[in-house]
Amino acid sequence: MTIQTKHNFGAGPCILPASVLEQAAEAVKNWDNSGLSILEVSHRSPKFEEVVVKTEALVRELLEVPEDYAVLFLQGGASTQFSMIPQNFLQKHQKAAYTDAGLFGEKSIKEAKYFGEVEVVGSSAGEGYSRIPEMGTITKDTAYFHCTSNNTIEGTEMFSFPELDIPLICDMSSDIFSRVIPIDQFDLVYAGAQKNMGPAGMTLVLVKNELLDTVKHPVPSMSDYRIYRDNQSMFNTPPVYSIFVAMLNMQWLKSRGGVAQIEKENIAKAALLYAEIDRNPLFYGMAVKEHRSRVNICFKMYDQAKEEDFLSFATERGMVGIKGYRTAGGFRASLYNALQIDSVKALVGCMQDYEKQHGNN
Amino acid sequence: MTIQTKHNFGAGPCILPASVLEQAAEAVKNWDNSGLSILEVSHRSPKFEEVVVKTEALVRELLEVPEDYAVLFLQGGASTQFSMIPQNFLQKHQKAAYTDAGLFGEKSIKEAKYFGEVEVVGSSAGEGYSRIPEMGTITKDTAYFHCTSNNTIEGTEMFSFPELDIPLICDMSSDIFSRVIPIDQFDLVYAGAQKNMGPAGMTLVLVKNELLDTVKHPVPSMSDYRIYRDNQSMFNTPPVYSIFVAMLNMQWLKSRGGVAQIEKENIAKAALLYAEIDRNPLFYGMAVKEHRSRVNICFKMYDQAKEEDFLSFATERGMVGIKGYRTAGGFRASLYNALQIDSVKALVGCMQDYEKQHGNN
Repeated sequence: MTIQTKHNFGAGPCILPASVLEQAAEAVKNWDNSGLSILEVSHRSPKFEEVVVKTEALVRELLEVPEDYAVLFLQGGASTQFSMIPQNFLQKHQKAAYTDAGLFGEKSIKEAKYFGEVEVVGSSAGEGYSRIPEMGTITKDTAYFHCTSNNTIEGTEMFSFPELDIPLICDMSSDIFSRVIPIDQFDLVYAGAQKNMGPAGMTLVLVKNELLDTVKHPVPSMSDYRIYRDNQSMFNTPPVYSIFVAMLNMQWLKSRGGVAQIEKENIAKAALLYAEIDRNPLFYGMAVKEHRSRVNICFKMYDQAKEEDFLSFATERGMVGIKGYRTAGGFRASLYNALQIDSVKALVGCMQDYEKQHGNN
Repeated sequence: MTIQTKHNFGAGPCILPASVLEQAAEAVKNWDNSGLSILEVSHRSPKFEEVVVKTEALVRELLEVPEDYAVLFLQGGASTQFSMIPQNFLQKHQKAAYTDAGLFGEKSIKEAKYFGEVEVVGSSAGEGYSRIPEMGTITKDTAYFHCTSNNTIEGTEMFSFPELDIPLICDMSSDIFSRVIPIDQFDLVYAGAQKNMGPAGMTLVLVKNELLDTVKHPVPSMSDYRIYRDNQSMFNTPPVYSIFVAMLNMQWLKSRGGVAQIEKENIAKAALLYAEIDRNPLFYGMAVKEHRSRVNICFKMYDQAKEEDFLSFATERGMVGIKGYRTAGGFRASLYNALQIDSVKALVGCMQDYEKQHGNN
């Protein structure tokens, strides 16, 4: 029996594999026959320290993280990184280059301005964030370049990254673990867990030690990446359960063949849904084709008045979480790793059935 | 069948009620018959928004939080509050008064120094933190006074709080919900969840709106209490599962009669264990009697060489988490709300049995 009875297209927190949820539930009752729940064990117990070690090893293996990068588990989501990054790497007299490719890019820019100067070197705001912006020139005196690899709300994704002489920092919250990305091209990568990694409450940071060595000014402990690195992410009590479930989820991903294999499946899932969006005369895609996200697929109906009705129609058929973000409108189907292609087929079926019933109205 | 087969005296993350763990596990599989796991629902879904509303209402009811206080759910633990508090309420040209009553007091002082001047108005460091320090004079130009109500590592607890003309801020991580404390005496109270509130990954902050109104300088969003207040703690993705389990745990506490009732039970549990520590010729308490914590009970053996043997003896009999903190040594039994008096009796039994077997060696 599978746990899910719904097709969960939610943008995050999002679908997790049924087998992971089974193990995650069992550990809440009795973790590994310890007679204790995973929720009530000390983070300093050898058994939990082993979880942290295993989780780090899985991150390193699945993402091919180079040796000279630290793998850190933090709290506060990507939003906390928006300020922690400039707090560590941008001083008052310096400037950093940011791209503005969506709502989260905008937010990252706003937070950086508390710490130093921000130069927006590319923005697609004028085009409704329907594309990845063209990038302007970045001067050598720039502290770092920041971009967002996948725009969860707007449904666009970067398929190439600039090669620069300055540190490259990337918010990969919504596409990390969904496709092969060479981590060694970046100096710092971060991601909220609640997409392809695990439940909400944990943030992954991969950071090159060389970048950390450049920090010379005082930084409060909980904002200092070096404190996390030097304490194996356990300077204080970490988000125990979120890390544990992330470990289970990464074990699942490994057993499924790893990131390269899941990427193939993700490409197939996205292709199936975009094909229907392009074929079906009722719907159209919101992003320009060359920047269409494989993760968050945003589409609208030509007849906007029908959108509410289609939402009900799909919801009755078990589709969950397909309503677009409030500022974007329309629909958004998120095709995270745990979502099976049968769920995409079910959504495509809804779109086709709706076309049959309502296409000529 | 109870879930726990052990007597869990861990200092945190710590014991939770068996019935809470049952519900917490079920929701990971299928939350409230929704066909979805609590780990994979959107934090913006009406069902989860209801959880946040209910959790806030339970906090207000159980702790009798006045109307003009905000109830906030954050991430990052009490350690993040150590810097967030001065970041909001202490400017470079100002000073704040801190007490130094243990390791966490020390840490809070260290972080405050990044933001302004710190005056330590009381310290028991010279007495090995075996007592709550006497408090010196606090001048009116002090931004706020900070104290720790219960010292988790050193086993001391404050049973009275100063009445001051300046804001009173208190770290109540380890005794909140364990006893009746009039919140209206304080301007800001904070607590990591992983003691009497729920699993690790969530931090509770109760803060008087009047104090928030004094903040006039720019504060990065994720460090700004007003952002949490104005967004019902959901400016970004909150720690969904930690909040959910905290709600279950507070429902349990309410059904048990609330804080006043559990306080009586906690007094009885602590009295039972301290009585044995005082009676048993092998053991002695580490804190001075008038400041003994009811929550974290720290004790040693007169013959230190026997401590490892007693630890094994007790562990074989199902006691978990009684080893003292590494810098404190000896033993620490934490008697959180969910720990039943039968567990305390079991520990007392161990101490008595050990005395019989080894007392004359």
